[in-house]
Amino acid sequence: MPAVPAPNYAELCRVYTRLYRFNHIAAIVGWDRNAMMPAKGNVARAAAEAELHALIHRTRTDNRLTGLLRAAEQEPLSDIERANLREIWRDWRDANALPEALVEAKTLAGAKCEHAWRSQRPANDWRGFLENFREVVRLAREEAQLLADDTGLTRYDVLMDRFEPGVRAADIDRIFGEVKQWLPDLITRTQAKQRDETVIAPVAPFPVATQRAMSLAVMKLLGFDFDAGRLDESTHPFSGGVPEDVRLTTRYSEDDFAQSLMGAIHETGHARFEQNLPREWLGQPIGLARSYGIHESQSLSFEMQLARSHGFAGLLAPLLSQHYGDQPAFAAGNLYRVFTRVKPGLIRVNADEATYPAHVILRYEIERALIEGEIEAEDIPALWDEKMQSLLGLDTRGNFKDGCMQDVHWTEGAFGYFPSYTLGAMYAAQWFAAMRRAVPDLDARIAAGDLAPVFEWLGANVWSQASRWDTPELVRRASGEALNPAHFRAHLETRYLGSSR
Amino acid sequence: MPAVPAPNYAELCRVYTRLYRFNHIAAIVGWDRNAMMPAKGNVARAAAEAELHALIHRTRTDNRLTGLLRAAEQEPLSDIERANLREIWRDWRDANALPEALVEAKTLAGAKCEHAWRSQRPANDWRGFLENFREVVRLAREEAQLLADDTGLTRYDVLMDRFEPGVRAADIDRIFGEVKQWLPDLITRTQAKQRDETVIAPVAPFPVATQRAMSLAVMKLLGFDFDAGRLDESTHPFSGGVPEDVRLTTRYSEDDFAQSLMGAIHETGHARFEQNLPREWLGQPIGLARSYGIHESQSLSFEMQLARSHGFAGLLAPLLSQHYGDQPAFAAGNLYRVFTRVKPGLIRVNADEATYPAHVILRYEIERALIEGEIEAEDIPALWDEKMQSLLGLDTRGNFKDGCMQDVHWTEGAFGYFPSYTLGAMYAAQWFAAMRRAVPDLDARIAAGDLAPVFEWLGANVWSQASRWDTPELVRRASGEALNPAHFRAHLETRYLGSSR
Repeated sequence: MPAVPAPNYAELCRVYTRLYRFNHIAAIVGWDRNAMMPAKGNVARAAAEAELHALIHRTRTDNRLTGLLRAAEQEPLSDIERANLREIWRDWRDANALPEALVEAKTLAGAKCEHAWRSQRPANDWRGFLENFREVVRLAREEAQLLADDTGLTRYDVLMDRFEPGVRAADIDRIFGEVKQWLPDLITRTQAKQRDETVIAPVAPFPVATQRAMSLAVMKLLGFDFDAGRLDESTHPFSGGVPEDVRLTTRYSEDDFAQSLMGAIHETGHARFEQNLPREWLGQPIGLARSYGIHESQSLSFEMQLARSHGFAGLLAPLLSQHYGDQPAFAAGNLYRVFTRVKPGLIRVNADEATYPAHVILRYEIERALIEGEIEAEDIPALWDEKMQSLLGLDTRGNFKDGCMQDVHWTEGAFGYFPSYTLGAMYAAQWFAAMRRAVPDLDARIAAGDLAPVFEWLGANVWSQASRWDTPELVRRASGEALNPAHFRAHLETRYLGSSR
Repeated sequence: MPAVPAPNYAELCRVYTRLYRFNHIAAIVGWDRNAMMPAKGNVARAAAEAELHALIHRTRTDNRLTGLLRAAEQEPLSDIERANLREIWRDWRDANALPEALVEAKTLAGAKCEHAWRSQRPANDWRGFLENFREVVRLAREEAQLLADDTGLTRYDVLMDRFEPGVRAADIDRIFGEVKQWLPDLITRTQAKQRDETVIAPVAPFPVATQRAMSLAVMKLLGFDFDAGRLDESTHPFSGGVPEDVRLTTRYSEDDFAQSLMGAIHETGHARFEQNLPREWLGQPIGLARSYGIHESQSLSFEMQLARSHGFAGLLAPLLSQHYGDQPAFAAGNLYRVFTRVKPGLIRVNADEATYPAHVILRYEIERALIEGEIEAEDIPALWDEKMQSLLGLDTRGNFKDGCMQDVHWTEGAFGYFPSYTLGAMYAAQWFAAMRRAVPDLDARIAAGDLAPVFEWLGANVWSQASRWDTPELVRRASGEALNPAHFRAHLETRYLGSSR
């Protein structure tokens, strides 16, 4: 019997397979908590999930792993194995960099702040919020400092690196700085152009059961594998479960068919990434979806690039009439205008494709300064007002609940995530630009109902790559260049300022 | 700070709290697998669940527990703590009595036999089944022998003790022996009596959505707490989840409203036991429902004692008309006749209340002899034929698929369980006899829609007792006497041979 050539690496893989299985269980009960669990299950469930997460944490921080990792570095490994080892190191650093007391303090402070925020936000109580939030910020800075000391990166960079491996604030500064130059003007011109358009409003009600049927129909059109996933309902839509069994949720409002429809399309983008991760890598960190921004690039490829195109509106029109009965609003041209309406607003989650980046840039600039210690929590409202005014021309003074208190991210202490949303939108635009170079008649094929070129391109260039490369390298390999916001600009200009068909 | 008076006991409680939480997680993902999981999730889920069960097994068999248990025995404990310690010992013995290799061999042999059985049963292939089944029997005997050596009980007694703590084959022999004396005659006389009755058959179809609504309505009537549980659908109905969050499933057939209705009522009986276990004991073994027979006594109290009574038929009648529209079959008197129709048949799970015990007695006699080594697997069909003939007057020769191959229990190696079904029916009859002594106008109150006396009696005497006592002691405390099959006989005679109202 031949000796195992890399016994330390092999043992690491066994540990990570065990972790993968525990994470599977955690994902399913997490989904259940949000989509299925009745209210009174909450206390016992929280204790049970905490026990499982403690077990996962103990496994990830087992002292033995350090030696195994160092020894595995010296073993003869293939490129794939080496990439997997890099991802294991990433996970190891993430789990071990912080003292347990800090992790616990962070969790407690975030939970306390979030719990109070639920009533403080509707009460517009910024003063009250600030009392808890200061501690959240203090602990996030402490965490970031420890991670920074460890890696030589800046405080904000280490937080962002969790979500976007390899992407740095210097990149984001350059990219967002550029967007700020042209976005406000693009929004103004779009609004001027749309002022003359006639848009027929869809006539409600849209029964929930029909919306569900419509969601399932569009998921089918988009290639969701119903033998490897489900669609259910939850207060906040999400994509959960595991690559082998993806659990999507959406929510329904009888007044509005578009919310559940676009929600289902968005989550199906996430789902197809998961459902098409390479099977031979599953169980190891290399087999996981790359990053939050890349994941978002899939949901936005589906929701923004594909679903809000002229061609796709033509595919949706007959499906909508079939489900809800015919109405003038469902004409393809009108649908396109409904789906591409631009209107600056206060709330990020309600924002359209063109104004959304403004919400993200504003948050990025504030959270970066906050984590780096250039500003304090007290300074946020004034900065928020100033930036809302300059980016979207909106006055938000004194309106904390629809201003800096609107998101759960900071409330819970999740800093460094916001850029991923707009990076995702930019990657998606870059994917479609590359796709159009590879498939010149792409839009005609989409209009004809042939979505295969989209799925094939994403499958070959993104889904199948999982965590093989860090984010910048994945982007270069997929599209032939580094992240280039010019594609996003071109996309918005074509869609919102080009001649309408 | 005072010293902990029982540090070893306290540490055992901590371990068992952790186990309780892991079992919570296992229960939810198990429910999910049966009620929610799409087909392709199966392989990854099996691996994930196996990992969790291995963890649970390691925790239960941790060497440290032996010392803790012995030391805790010497500590000053309250009666409740001592009862909990007894239950921890029970669990410890169950987990540690068998070598791991045997547990593994049993699981594999059971899974192999069950997998082949799925196609062998429809093919009536007893010969093929026997090849796998011999190994299942061999391992079950080996297991029973090891447990018997450990406890001084007989082989069959140790298997049954898992399901019915404290109940012995000598008790069952006496009780079932008695039932065999009068049951065949009771069945014959019931059939003769029912021959003259007019029963109006309900007219199908019964839409699935309406059946679900009807199930929810009857669960509400029976006090199911929807904030602490759910009703879903699965191929084989079951009651799962955890006491804090009970997950019931049922199945629907458009031809038959009674199956889903009686299924929901039956499972609600299980659910109310779980939902009303004493909160202060939850997390410890003493807080778990006593035994399978006692659990079944709750589902049968609801389904047989309560739901098939004259009074309850009167409560169901308007609910059925309200859901399905009026039809002559829904008249209360006719409903009662529909629900109490007696007809010997080959299949246990389709059996009515009166013939069901015959199916159980037959299985008990065969499995006991098989485990004790008095017969071999080859002898089963002939014994089956003989007993079906003498107990139910039915010829089952050569029909293995509707005979000795019909159940999954033996197939998987679960011996010692069958008596619990009929013990449950007998306990239920004994509970209602005790209830009628305590509440003389019980039947009038049920007929008037006042079910509180039933819930209060069960709550005080069964639900709140959890695993405080072993099964025989629980029965004595609840009803004032040991299990007495005379109550079951009296119940059947009153219902099936008494003057009809």
